[in-house]
Amino acid sequence: MLGCGSVGSQVVRLLGEQSVDLAARIGAPLELIGVAVRRLDAPREVDVPADLLTTDAGALVDKADLVIEVIGGIEPARSLILRALEGGASVVTANKALLADDGPTLYEAAEKVGRDLYFEAAVAGAIPILRPLRESLVGDRITRVMGIVNGTTNYILDKMDTSGAGFADALTEAQDLGYAEADPTADVEGFDAAAKAAILASLAFHSRVTAADVHREGITDVSAADVASARAMNSVVKLLAIAELVDGDVSVRVHPAMIPASHPLAGVREAYNAVFVESEAAGQLMFYGKGAGGSPTASAVLGDLVTVARNRLTGAKGAGESAYAQRAVLPMGQTRTRYHVAIDVEDRAGVLAQIANAFADHDVSISTVRQEGRGEDAQLVVVSHTATDAQLAACVEILRGMDIVREVTSVMRVEGATE
Amino acid sequence: MLGCGSVGSQVVRLLGEQSVDLAARIGAPLELIGVAVRRLDAPREVDVPADLLTTDAGALVDKADLVIEVIGGIEPARSLILRALEGGASVVTANKALLADDGPTLYEAAEKVGRDLYFEAAVAGAIPILRPLRESLVGDRITRVMGIVNGTTNYILDKMDTSGAGFADALTEAQDLGYAEADPTADVEGFDAAAKAAILASLAFHSRVTAADVHREGITDVSAADVASARAMNSVVKLLAIAELVDGDVSVRVHPAMIPASHPLAGVREAYNAVFVESEAAGQLMFYGKGAGGSPTASAVLGDLVTVARNRLTGAKGAGESAYAQRAVLPMGQTRTRYHVAIDVEDRAGVLAQIANAFADHDVSISTVRQEGRGEDAQLVVVSHTATDAQLAACVEILRGMDIVREVTSVMRVEGATE
Repeated sequence: MLGCGSVGSQVVRLLGEQSVDLAARIGAPLELIGVAVRRLDAPREVDVPADLLTTDAGALVDKADLVIEVIGGIEPARSLILRALEGGASVVTANKALLADDGPTLYEAAEKVGRDLYFEAAVAGAIPILRPLRESLVGDRITRVMGIVNGTTNYILDKMDTSGAGFADALTEAQDLGYAEADPTADVEGFDAAAKAAILASLAFHSRVTAADVHREGITDVSAADVASARAMNSVVKLLAIAELVDGDVSVRVHPAMIPASHPLAGVREAYNAVFVESEAAGQLMFYGKGAGGSPTASAVLGDLVTVARNRLTGAKGAGESAYAQRAVLPMGQTRTRYHVAIDVEDRAGVLAQIANAFADHDVSISTVRQEGRGEDAQLVVVSHTATDAQLAACVEILRGMDIVREVTSVMRVEGATE
Repeated sequence: MLGCGSVGSQVVRLLGEQSVDLAARIGAPLELIGVAVRRLDAPREVDVPADLLTTDAGALVDKADLVIEVIGGIEPARSLILRALEGGASVVTANKALLADDGPTLYEAAEKVGRDLYFEAAVAGAIPILRPLRESLVGDRITRVMGIVNGTTNYILDKMDTSGAGFADALTEAQDLGYAEADPTADVEGFDAAAKAAILASLAFHSRVTAADVHREGITDVSAADVASARAMNSVVKLLAIAELVDGDVSVRVHPAMIPASHPLAGVREAYNAVFVESEAAGQLMFYGKGAGGSPTASAVLGDLVTVARNRLTGAKGAGESAYAQRAVLPMGQTRTRYHVAIDVEDRAGVLAQIANAFADHDVSISTVRQEGRGEDAQLVVVSHTATDAQLAACVEILRGMDIVREVTSVMRVEGATE
């Protein structure tokens, strides 16, 4: 095992506690031959026998049949995984950053040497999503994957929804409770979700998608008014990671969106994660569970470990990521969805017609318009039919310049609703 | 392929449409060498070339490497599956009745000859649940599985909840829309759910559980008043299939129950299915999707087909059901849960004290009591802490005999709530 942080510690614990069960299910016992760490005397959640600890990760990798990588980050994780595969070991990793950054290099290396590379723990923690996408749906055609894959932002948005709090207050509460880190950037700006979106898109569409391909917007601009406006439409605001197939291209993006309360993803509360999958034959599927935490993530690592260990014994190799059909990534401007636009307007005759014209001029068809307030509080809330992001952006630009418009107070995508 | 009804027809269609993809993912092409049917001239949803059709299922099985069984029912399905395995074929089946009735015989036969027996389609249609239970969570310890595994009853209960309709009206609507059959007994009396509960319990706890072991109550006695009473507690009524580990024994049952609106299963609407899993390390997981229908079920069959085909090529064998730890099935009377009891009472002083005493006499601790109405409409609604089914039944028996009690109008279990 490479690394012994919170996930690694729980892996060590479960390997000990479940050794009899694991041996029975694999058909041979597992022996932990070493744990590579940076500092031998660092504090750890579990006791690891001193003679198992080593700072020489490379030498450990060269001796192992199975390598569990729970260091995280790009280097030295990448070099060690490649070294393990080239040396004939099978690899289980929980490293989403590395897979999102350079997954294809690793998948190819595994393919080349005929060894397994499993990474269920890298996306949505304990939720079995990789295996269903790789195996259960392999005879089907996936058209869209839509996930709540970051627990911190879901916790914050859920608090905003239930308490009416603003983003800043909800973030502070999440930090106090340990759901958000002191520097919450990776979560609230959507970087973490974008890495997972890249991995999900690669798996779902058998194409190479990296984190850099993902259009990314975080939740820092989501206001209490946006959340209230969603509520008024019987919807909730969620940070979604979306990967969809559009005429053979892949659209992949992370952004906050309103989804109807009746959508299965709307019921995903607190720090839970869920991945909603649409496929041609199976229809709608959803996978729900804990997306993070040492123990849930360790459960996913052990599930993979049993599979790759059994494959070694039988001489088999699990389903890999080899059958690639490289697809183009659709620019965000060409991505089609629906939009919710809230506009503070002058309260005078003809306003609605002028606004409607601005939408029509950009080929953005309007689904519903709701007028709220009077006088200085007059507001129009427009929900559009599907349009491209570029059309909508151009329309909003024009709205902002209109003299009857005091302010465009909210622009948010609407997902998961039928037209 | 054995059988060519609505699932079989969709399998034929997908095998044709996706043949290139399937060959790429398996590493070799699949050839459909025959389809065994009862009558050669029966109408079918897809065109099957006449030279593939045969009425001699046995001879077809003897020629095949892979056998797909979608006949359903016990015989001749069981004999044909055993003949296939003994002849060295791998088998994919969607037959829940057979697996619930005599699964262990089939699992053992597969184990003995070292061939695969996959049956993802037998439980919850397209939802990948077998694979997560068998593989992803293999390094974890499952403590409870709670599922909505019958679409017909979920549709009926959902209609009762949203429209306030009674059972009979909701059933008629479900029949008109094709969600319920003309003879709805297998669904509304819980037989279908009990078969799935047996398979889920076997998989989750690696123990032999058959449909006959499952305590079964249907939804025919669920009244509009029960549903309204659930709503008043911010809960919904669902038909649940529950399998849980209690001190090493297995409790397995199907019955209607109230669950809190905040529980992930409460959001499962219309004819959808979902399976909620609790395990020691991974925590709470849920798998959601379409539980029936030709196309979704065929998707699950194809996912299995790819796996067993690939296993044949590599000489591997998938995770089987061999590692059994036979567990006792807990009698229903010893099963513990919480209860919702509605009692029409005389409206006079001391009534609450007498009712409370009756509960206390049977060691059923009360969580909340709500009084509704006055005079002739006076009603007490009691929600208990956990108690055994036997304690609660004895308590209700006493309540029914009390002269201050006009009628015990509803007794329903409460699941998914924290104490």
